[in-house]
Amino acid sequence: LVAARRSQLVLGLDPDPARLWPEALARVSGIQNPPNDNAQVAAALAAQAVQAHCSLVIDAVAEHCVAVKLQLACFERLGVSGWRALTAVIAHAQRADLLVIADAKRGDIDVSAAAYAQAFFGHTNTPWGEVHGLGVDALTVNPLLGLDSLAPLVGAARGVGAGLFVLVRTSNPGATDLQDQPLRDGGTVSDRLARLVAQLGPAGGELSDVGAVVGATAPGRLAALRKSMPRAVFLLPGVGAQGGRVEDLAPAFEPGPAGGLIAVSRGLVYAHERDGGEPSMAAANEAERLREMAWGLVR
Amino acid sequence: LVAARRSQLVLGLDPDPARLWPEALARVSGIQNPPNDNAQVAAALAAQAVQAHCSLVIDAVAEHCVAVKLQLACFERLGVSGWRALTAVIAHAQRADLLVIADAKRGDIDVSAAAYAQAFFGHTNTPWGEVHGLGVDALTVNPLLGLDSLAPLVGAARGVGAGLFVLVRTSNPGATDLQDQPLRDGGTVSDRLARLVAQLGPAGGELSDVGAVVGATAPGRLAALRKSMPRAVFLLPGVGAQGGRVEDLAPAFEPGPAGGLIAVSRGLVYAHERDGGEPSMAAANEAERLREMAWGLVR
Repeated sequence: LVAARRSQLVLGLDPDPARLWPEALARVSGIQNPPNDNAQVAAALAAQAVQAHCSLVIDAVAEHCVAVKLQLACFERLGVSGWRALTAVIAHAQRADLLVIADAKRGDIDVSAAAYAQAFFGHTNTPWGEVHGLGVDALTVNPLLGLDSLAPLVGAARGVGAGLFVLVRTSNPGATDLQDQPLRDGGTVSDRLARLVAQLGPAGGELSDVGAVVGATAPGRLAALRKSMPRAVFLLPGVGAQGGRVEDLAPAFEPGPAGGLIAVSRGLVYAHERDGGEPSMAAANEAERLREMAWGLVR
Repeated sequence: LVAARRSQLVLGLDPDPARLWPEALARVSGIQNPPNDNAQVAAALAAQAVQAHCSLVIDAVAEHCVAVKLQLACFERLGVSGWRALTAVIAHAQRADLLVIADAKRGDIDVSAAAYAQAFFGHTNTPWGEVHGLGVDALTVNPLLGLDSLAPLVGAARGVGAGLFVLVRTSNPGATDLQDQPLRDGGTVSDRLARLVAQLGPAGGELSDVGAVVGATAPGRLAALRKSMPRAVFLLPGVGAQGGRVEDLAPAFEPGPAGGLIAVSRGLVYAHERDGGEPSMAAANEAERLREMAWGLVR
C-alpha cells in the first residue's frame, strides 16, 4: 500500500467531542427512543458526532494516507456508545481502503493478552456462536510484562495477516523516566525492548509483522534503534503538535519506503486553525504536503 | 472497609463465555428485536450470560471480600455488548458494597491518559452535556511511559477519592524480561518503578492513593519493594492458579491490614471443580478460607 500510494502517512484520530469539525455537529440526527438518563443521551449524541467527524476527516485525507490510527481512550470515554462509534469508524476506514491501527497500548499476562487478541484480531467462542473482534490490521502494545505477554498477540496477529507495534521509545518527555534508563549490562531499557521486538519477528521476509513505536521527538535515537530492529516497521508519532519533524526521520526508511509510518493527528485535523480555510481542504493540503515530504526521504 | 470486614480479599472476574457457571447460562433470556447479524446476536447473548455469571459470583463471595477486580480484556472481546455488561457488573458490585478495580493496565501520553481518566474516573464534556465515565474506585496502570503519563490519572483519581495500582512487578514469568533487569545506577527496573510510585503519593496520610501491582508469585521481592513504597497499597495477583501462596505475603501488610489486597480469580470462580459442590457454595467456602488465612498474617 505504501508503494502504491507513495505515502507513509497515517491519520491519527483522537476525537474530542468538544472540538469536532462543525460539519460533524450538523450531521447529528438525534436518537430514537431516547433513554431517561440525560448522560446516556449525551453519550449517544456525542458518539454520533464523533463518528461523523472521523468519517469526514477520513474522507478528506484518505487518498494521501495508508492507514488510520485510532486512539482507543477517546472512544472508551463515551462508553457503550463510544465502542459503537469505534466499530463504525473502523468500517468506514476499511471502505476508504485504509489500514486500521488500534492505538490501545494493551499489555497483560498471557491469558488476558489472549483475550485482548480476541478483542482486536480474532473471535471469541461462546455457546451462542462466534463473536467477532474489531478486526483491525495492527495494534499498539506495551511490552512491560515481557515476552510471554506479547506471544499470544503476535500469534493471533500473524494468523490473520495483521501486526503489532510494540512501544520501544515513546514521544513524550516522560520517556526518559524509564525507557532511557541505562541497564547494567549495556544499552537502555529502550534498547532492550528493541532486541525483544527483533526476536519476535518471523524467521524470513523483508519487513517484520512486529513493528515498533518510536517517537519522532527523539530523532537522535532512530539510527541506533534501526540497527537493533533492521526489519521492524516504525510507527512514528509526535510529528507536529509534539514537536517532531518529518525531515529528521530518514533512518526509519532504511529497510525501504514502508519501514516508517508517520502518524499525524492534530496537525491534520486542526490544520484549518493554523492555515485557514475549510477543515477538510486544510487537512487534505497538509496531508499532501507531509506525504510528499516523507516520500522525498526515501532514497 | 478492610477493617470492617476483616478481609483483604479481592474477587477477580475474568469471565470466559465458554466457561461460565451453569446457573448463568440458565438466566439468559434472549434479546428483543434481534439483529440479522448472527455474530451480533451471539455477542448480546454471551454478554447477558457474562453479566449473570459475574453477578452470581459477586453474590456468592461478597461478604468475604472488599473489592472486585474486573479484567477489561474479557469484556472488550464482546464489543459493544461487552462494554454494556461491564457497566452492569460495576453497578452490581457497587450495590453489593464492594469497591471496584478496573484491571485495564492503561498507559499513554498525557492527553490520552487524560482521556482514559475521563473514561474510568471522570466525565467528558460534550455539546450535549456531560458523559459519565465508568466511575470505578481504582484502575491498574502501566508506567512504561513515565511520570507525565501517570500524572493526569493520579490527579483525576485523587479528585474523586479513587486510586491507582501501578504495575511494579507482575506475576507472570515474563516479568524477568524487563522488570527484573538491573539498572546501571543500581536496583532493577521494578525498583525504579517502585520509587516512581512512592514519588506520586500524596504528602501526608497513612496509606497512599497510588498503589502498586506486585505479583504474589515473587514473594522474595516483597520486603524490598515494601521498603521503597512504605505507604503504597499492594495489589497482589497470582495466588492460586499462577502459583502464589497467601502465607508468603506478610511483608505487604506492614503498613497495616489494608497494605495488601489479595486478588484471586480462578481460585474462587472454579473452586467447585477442585472441591466439588455447587459453584456458589464452593466459591464462598474458598473465599472465607483465604480471607481468614490473610487476616491471620496481620500482626
